[in-house]
Amino acid sequence: MMGGTIHGVGLGPGARDLMSVRADRLIRDARHIAYFRKKGRPGHARGIVEGMLHPDAVEFAMEYPVTTEIPLSDPRYNDLLSAFYADCAAHLDGLSAGGEDVVVLCEGDPFFYGSFMHLHSRLAGPVKIVPGITGMSGAWTASGAPIGWGDDVLTVLMATLPEEELVRRIHDSHALVVMKIGRNLPKLLRAVEAAGKQDSAWLVEYATMADQRIVPLAQATGAAPYFSILLVHGQGRRP
Amino acid sequence: MMGGTIHGVGLGPGARDLMSVRADRLIRDARHIAYFRKKGRPGHARGIVEGMLHPDAVEFAMEYPVTTEIPLSDPRYNDLLSAFYADCAAHLDGLSAGGEDVVVLCEGDPFFYGSFMHLHSRLAGPVKIVPGITGMSGAWTASGAPIGWGDDVLTVLMATLPEEELVRRIHDSHALVVMKIGRNLPKLLRAVEAAGKQDSAWLVEYATMADQRIVPLAQATGAAPYFSILLVHGQGRRP
Repeated sequence: MMGGTIHGVGLGPGARDLMSVRADRLIRDARHIAYFRKKGRPGHARGIVEGMLHPDAVEFAMEYPVTTEIPLSDPRYNDLLSAFYADCAAHLDGLSAGGEDVVVLCEGDPFFYGSFMHLHSRLAGPVKIVPGITGMSGAWTASGAPIGWGDDVLTVLMATLPEEELVRRIHDSHALVVMKIGRNLPKLLRAVEAAGKQDSAWLVEYATMADQRIVPLAQATGAAPYFSILLVHGQGRRP
Repeated sequence: MMGGTIHGVGLGPGARDLMSVRADRLIRDARHIAYFRKKGRPGHARGIVEGMLHPDAVEFAMEYPVTTEIPLSDPRYNDLLSAFYADCAAHLDGLSAGGEDVVVLCEGDPFFYGSFMHLHSRLAGPVKIVPGITGMSGAWTASGAPIGWGDDVLTVLMATLPEEELVRRIHDSHALVVMKIGRNLPKLLRAVEAAGKQDSAWLVEYATMADQRIVPLAQATGAAPYFSILLVHGQGRRP
């Protein structure tokens, strides 16, 4: 018996019609759909495909273990997440071994800082990836201006980096994308100012979604939603 | 009379079913389609949409002026390109002023180092952008491995940069994407080696397309096709 395929399918930045034609077809035809979500929440990925699923589709919600009481630096945090991903991968491999195809919903692009990567590295069964429009593409499109021109260097940073490293790298790049902002916003604000980019930075929240919002960084305050991305547009040569 | 909309539509990395559902619909419905191409060539963007266009669609092929005899450093090169983009923008604005919607085909993502940006900055009429899956997403998907994990810093470089700057930045990044390779491949090979990344770099040619090819950089030689991207995958923390 042939093993079924596990499809890691990129959903894009959030607007449903920004997923690829290939993703749209796979999702509508799927008999098994899996997605991550926080406990007690409907899940953002699941929300994007609402109304698209086959009536016989079996859903597998992969609920992150509650980790708010454990600091990231505690080894138990890592152990807990590792066990969670291993359990999810075992379930998906079980479906695949039984000959079933499974579609795993991935926000953005599956191989660009996505949770699916932690399953992918643990899966035994055959896997196919459908790339997606990244959240950062959604953000610079929403900003109405190109991110990079000519020879511009683009740096993609996570706001979880130490402050001094953020300052150095923000200063050293022409174009900039910062992700994983959330509670790191105050640190990021200080770093952008220390790097002298405070007047050219934009914060894009919920790009391409109904509550999309774009503000100059100077107007941003204390916290940012999960789906927020900081941009500095490159100003490179152009004919 | 209302002006028509000029749509800058991302086609994605090359496989037709990797364009977004929104792009697919706009292209099939369009009565005016514009695209860049080299003189005497059918055009890569036009090739992707072959068989999709409305029978009444009017095509506007924007043919790059022949520039091979003029070095990039010559001011006439810049003038020639600038006049070309201005002419194209004027034609599109004329259609828009006459109430016609136009779809401009853009390889990859329109606001990510794309030729459409040079029209966008010159257009007077209303413009809407449809983001696309970038060529680099297509490349790392084809490579079968994620580009960045955890806190990894991703740097996107153009191979047109000076060699010393390439060395410094390649050395200073965890994950790496290099575009605009072509005739710069020998310089890029030297820079990757000087930065100590020669054993972890991959060259991806024609990602997601029929002639897709992925080779360790060590096996690459003298020249690379236009649609080639160099990757170094990040190895950041993961549970």
